[in-house]
Amino acid sequence: MLLNKRISIWSFLKYIKYDILFIVFYAIAIGVLDQFGFLSKISIPIAVTGVFGTAVALLLGFRTNQAYERWWEARIIWGAIVNDSRTLVRQGITFYDRQDGQYEFRIKEIVLRQITWCYALGESLRKVDFSPKVAGFLKIQDINDQNVPNAILLKHSEALSEALNDKVINKFQQVQIDSTIARLCDSMGKCERIKNTVFPKAHSLLIHLIIYVFATMLPFGLSDNYLSVEIGLTIAIPIIFIAIEKTSILMQDPFENDPMDTPMTDLAQTIEINLKQMTGDEDIPEKKKPETYYVL
Amino acid sequence: MLLNKRISIWSFLKYIKYDILFIVFYAIAIGVLDQFGFLSKISIPIAVTGVFGTAVALLLGFRTNQAYERWWEARIIWGAIVNDSRTLVRQGITFYDRQDGQYEFRIKEIVLRQITWCYALGESLRKVDFSPKVAGFLKIQDINDQNVPNAILLKHSEALSEALNDKVINKFQQVQIDSTIARLCDSMGKCERIKNTVFPKAHSLLIHLIIYVFATMLPFGLSDNYLSVEIGLTIAIPIIFIAIEKTSILMQDPFENDPMDTPMTDLAQTIEINLKQMTGDEDIPEKKKPETYYVL
Amino acid sequence: MLLNKRISIWSFLKYIKYDILFIVFYAIAIGVLDQFGFLSKISIPIAVTGVFGTAVALLLGFRTNQAYERWWEARIIWGAIVNDSRTLVRQGITFYDRQDGQYEFRIKEIVLRQITWCYALGESLRKVDFSPKVAGFLKIQDINDQNVPNAILLKHSEALSEALNDKVINKFQQVQIDSTIARLCDSMGKCERIKNTVFPKAHSLLIHLIIYVFATMLPFGLSDNYLSVEIGLTIAIPIIFIAIEKTSILMQDPFENDPMDTPMTDLAQTIEINLKQMTGDEDIPEKKKPETYYVL
Amino acid sequence: MLLNKRISIWSFLKYIKYDILFIVFYAIAIGVLDQFGFLSKISIPIAVTGVFGTAVALLLGFRTNQAYERWWEARIIWGAIVNDSRTLVRQGITFYDRQDGQYEFRIKEIVLRQITWCYALGESLRKVDFSPKVAGFLKIQDINDQNVPNAILLKHSEALSEALNDKVINKFQQVQIDSTIARLCDSMGKCERIKNTVFPKAHSLLIHLIIYVFATMLPFGLSDNYLSVEIGLTIAIPIIFIAIEKTSILMQDPFENDPMDTPMTDLAQTIEINLKQMTGDEDIPEKKKPETYYVL
Amino acid sequence: MLLNKRISIWSFLKYIKYDILFIVFYAIAIGVLDQFGFLSKISIPIAVTGVFGTAVALLLGFRTNQAYERWWEARIIWGAIVNDSRTLVRQGITFYDRQDGQYEFRIKEIVLRQITWCYALGESLRKVDFSPKVAGFLKIQDINDQNVPNAILLKHSEALSEALNDKVINKFQQVQIDSTIARLCDSMGKCERIKNTVFPKAHSLLIHLIIYVFATMLPFGLSDNYLSVEIGLTIAIPIIFIAIEKTSILMQDPFENDPMDTPMTDLAQTIEINLKQMTGDEDIPEKKKPETYYVL
Repeated sequence: MLLNKRISIWSFLKYIKYDILFIVFYAIAIGVLDQFGFLSKISIPIAVTGVFGTAVALLLGFRTNQAYERWWEARIIWGAIVNDSRTLVRQGITFYDRQDGQYEFRIKEIVLRQITWCYALGESLRKVDFSPKVAGFLKIQDINDQNVPNAILLKHSEALSEALNDKVINKFQQVQIDSTIARLCDSMGKCERIKNTVFPKAHSLLIHLIIYVFATMLPFGLSDNYLSVEIGLTIAIPIIFIAIEKTSILMQDPFENDPMDTPMTDLAQTIEINLKQMTGDEDIPEKKKPETYYVL
Repeated sequence: MLLNKRISIWSFLKYIKYDILFIVFYAIAIGVLDQFGFLSKISIPIAVTGVFGTAVALLLGFRTNQAYERWWEARIIWGAIVNDSRTLVRQGITFYDRQDGQYEFRIKEIVLRQITWCYALGESLRKVDFSPKVAGFLKIQDINDQNVPNAILLKHSEALSEALNDKVINKFQQVQIDSTIARLCDSMGKCERIKNTVFPKAHSLLIHLIIYVFATMLPFGLSDNYLSVEIGLTIAIPIIFIAIEKTSILMQDPFENDPMDTPMTDLAQTIEINLKQMTGDEDIPEKKKPETYYVL
Repeated sequence: MLLNKRISIWSFLKYIKYDILFIVFYAIAIGVLDQFGFLSKISIPIAVTGVFGTAVALLLGFRTNQAYERWWEARIIWGAIVNDSRTLVRQGITFYDRQDGQYEFRIKEIVLRQITWCYALGESLRKVDFSPKVAGFLKIQDINDQNVPNAILLKHSEALSEALNDKVINKFQQVQIDSTIARLCDSMGKCERIKNTVFPKAHSLLIHLIIYVFATMLPFGLSDNYLSVEIGLTIAIPIIFIAIEKTSILMQDPFENDPMDTPMTDLAQTIEINLKQMTGDEDIPEKKKPETYYVL
Repeated sequence: MLLNKRISIWSFLKYIKYDILFIVFYAIAIGVLDQFGFLSKISIPIAVTGVFGTAVALLLGFRTNQAYERWWEARIIWGAIVNDSRTLVRQGITFYDRQDGQYEFRIKEIVLRQITWCYALGESLRKVDFSPKVAGFLKIQDINDQNVPNAILLKHSEALSEALNDKVINKFQQVQIDSTIARLCDSMGKCERIKNTVFPKAHSLLIHLIIYVFATMLPFGLSDNYLSVEIGLTIAIPIIFIAIEKTSILMQDPFENDPMDTPMTDLAQTIEINLKQMTGDEDIPEKKKPETYYVL
Repeated sequence: MLLNKRISIWSFLKYIKYDILFIVFYAIAIGVLDQFGFLSKISIPIAVTGVFGTAVALLLGFRTNQAYERWWEARIIWGAIVNDSRTLVRQGITFYDRQDGQYEFRIKEIVLRQITWCYALGESLRKVDFSPKVAGFLKIQDINDQNVPNAILLKHSEALSEALNDKVINKFQQVQIDSTIARLCDSMGKCERIKNTVFPKAHSLLIHLIIYVFATMLPFGLSDNYLSVEIGLTIAIPIIFIAIEKTSILMQDPFENDPMDTPMTDLAQTIEINLKQMTGDEDIPEKKKPETYYVL
């Protein structure tokens, strides 16, 4: 997630440097050719360029909106994961029978499992190697499924089932906690959906194409009496459109280990702190101030 | 679902080849006639074409949006199917009494039934013949209802009812699993809704019509001093609009066995792998790398 | 619901025949007057007409969207009715005690009541007379409430209560089935909401008004050098706008017994087939192929 | 709620009579001054007016949409109140033990309380005095909380609690009915949210301002060769924009006791009829045909 | 939350005073330079400015919409908090056993805890020091977690667990109240999500940038025959766009202790009054009339 401070327009423009180079070159080339009269006969009525520009703006609006919604949905899902993690542990703490000799152990286990699940989900969505914390847990628990977070959820349910057999919780409480686990399972699946569904490729291609068609048309609609203004506009307007397009491309895939990601590691840390404080655990990780213009 | 790689703009343009042919022919015809002065008296102020073009762009935006939402809703529904399949099996594994002699058999049955249900739902939505796996299951279970997935869900509930009678699960657990089955039933019905509801025909016709009206008006608004530019614009702009329209048409029906489909077979395979690993089944199908630019 | 085949643009244009007549007459009148120089002094800059046209397009976009959403919501509600009908019967079949002597009778009763409810809801929303099937059921059950579907739901709950008293279902199962009935009650109320809420009249009037104001302004912005083109545009553009408006008007009220309705009778038939096959009933109604360009 | 019949554009225009007066005066003043050459040097390119007009149209579109959504949400909430009222009474009728001596009394009490709640909610949202029916009930029940509907809901829950103590309902049934009451509590709170949240004032001011800026700019962009046309346009276009704005203002506050309100009294009456018929009560109020162009 | 009265356009303009200063300076500078002929050769076709202005308007529309939705979602969440607070207390009053000696104490405790939670949540979202009321409660309860509201919710659940052990509530009632607490936990997490998710910085930068590019282009597209009109337009249009942008910036962060905030303190007070009246508490705080143009 980009932070409010420290980011500048320059750190962003580097994402579209090739597009900028191409457009600058094209604008200057056309400008110069025009100056020497090679293209003076070609002119496109600016109103046609206008209609086309409106279409570009509308489609960019559509794309921006869909990309924003994917990004925001990703954030909503992780918000739900935060909530359900807290609810799960709160239910554990208050439903489990305190008279039971293993009470503390059972709760600690739930907390550890849930924290690991959060980190593991983030790491598998980003397709990075598991962090030592998670890898260690998986080894101890002997988990080697393709879908690790799903396997951890199953462990949750199995512990619950055992707790029922040991009469540490009652039947209603089991079903209530099971509903919380089912919601976590939903959130996990929703993340996978966003991760695995490519934003409609045909749309992306078309929008990219029409921005370039628009950029190509633009200089022929401008009056050529003042070269630098013509070149300036031919550069500025398409670049702004491409910048908007690029922003959408970056936002539409929120689990790619880049600066515009949903800050999953950061959220998992928040969860870790919350859950540990709920159980009176002293070993609270400290949150470092971000040193860059984003958090992951 | 289209994949991010390998698709080119050309593999897409073949969907609108007749429209392209027609528009190219029309543009050249008008251009030539114009050149010989037959149409010189007719001119449409470009501003009128502009208003009209804005209306086209707005309606295309509306259509693109609705088509996208149908496509995305289909994907959300199948995401829910993935989640509820996992939840169902997790509930089965942890709710059913492990002391029961038939424990393993019952769980295997749930898993097989659920996997078959996913494939069967995908195949009936696409109106293709059932795959051997599904057909075999139907034969053994003696199912010949018109709505096969619905019949399979009923089998789920019947097994559940039996498990309650055999005291393998308790009354709350039955109701909890029943809720999961009810959600699967909901997802199934939602898919049928999208499949069976034709996108409003009147809208489709009107939008197609006004794109062609716009294409017809366009050359009369262009200055005729440079033939190739006029022809180029008369071809390029309408084709882009038609391409956008076509994309929407392809996306609005996501269960038609074409490259833009919801990848139901692929998702059913994911479900199969997940469910089998949850029960420790060794017979995991291997996912092949897609060889084309899409997965089904 | 309009079907994909057989509908032509002509079968649609008849809905706006008076508007077409009026606009054709107006366009010709202005064209002729203009030709004879009566109106030559009046001219409206086409850019003003353009702004106005953009406003018309935006408001039409708004209206189209809202109408589409009412139509689509109606379809979603009926999709939920399909799902909950299946869930209700599946719960009945698997929750009720098979040892009970009246098992078959009770289930048949639920199925019949639910099928009748679906037809009755569709018929009361359309404000048509009840079909013989429904009327017969009402007579036998002695129902003469103003809101018939609501009275049928009450019968469902009463049978459920009786089943609990007879110990055919347990307390949790009663509550679980009650939730399904509550969802059906919700769907029923949602249909009534759409039926009884007039689309904001002020909006309808304003949009209709500004389309006509736009149509009135249009010819004065067109150059008058070629009569037939001027008349053509003055006719074509407003008619397309009115056609879009009319489509929205037809879609915004989806329970009016017209071709653009939610196909409630068809869906009720689907439900009848599904429910009867679930209970092994042999008396399955056959679905006829639609003979017109729509299904009701 | 405005009804489909009897409303005319005139009954609506009276809401904006001062704006109309002002704009007519301004248009004529500018027209006359222009005619005498006082303002001939000032001209604003119509394209600038055009951009500005597009911005006005877009912002009006945004505002119209948000206002519509508040209005429609209000209607959805009241639809949910209708549904949950029916569900509450249906649950009461079928959950309460018929063997209990006070059965009829208890049910009648629930029905009366629920009907009163509906009227009381409508009346407190509209900030009008309670009708005699409601006031009488409050007096008998000795309710004088600031939030009357909330106090009535508490009475519902207390009666439920008593019924559980008297063993008239079982524990699951109490919880199930409690969920229905919680949904009614939600609907009540949602109405209060819409009522108490002022539509962002800054937006309202800005939109109002830019419509007037646009109206001010408009005549300077029109050619002044034909006075009456110039004046006509300067009057017509801003008035249409203001009319659209006014419609939104009226719709955005749906509980203000004006013609565009959610028809809460009417819906409460529908609820009264439904609930009384469900309990076989003979004292059904008759619904009068509305005599004006709206129902409250 | 801004109130309907007393706010003027001036109290709003002070938020953008630096932008206004800059634009006024730029407009006058360009106007004067233009007057002396320095810039007469530079002109940008107004149609290009028009396209660009349309893009600005569309992106502003997008931003306004997203900001509005964040603001409205914040209000919806706090509406849900109001509802669930009432539901929680209503469930407490009617579920807890009145025969229990500690009944009054337990209920008072729930009420106090819930009221404190509401104030504490508002204060931690705004990152202000806790008010004496909250601070006192935290001291007595010995709460020093980083996330105070979460710790208070845990106290709720612990009291519930104790009540179950003391047989003051039954098992179903515990689970039902637990669901209410889980919803409160959800609402809390949703507020944190909105608070902690920076509105996409790249979008903000781009929109700000293109408004300034537009402002820069504007004077070169205006005819320079009448200085004051040119300067007026060059000032008015960009300022209106910036005002719209600023409004969105203020709305998108609804928990910042500024006039456009969700009125959390006010809502917490409403909750306090409601909950205390439900338990017959006499110590009702009085709501003061707001003295400024907003409530917090």
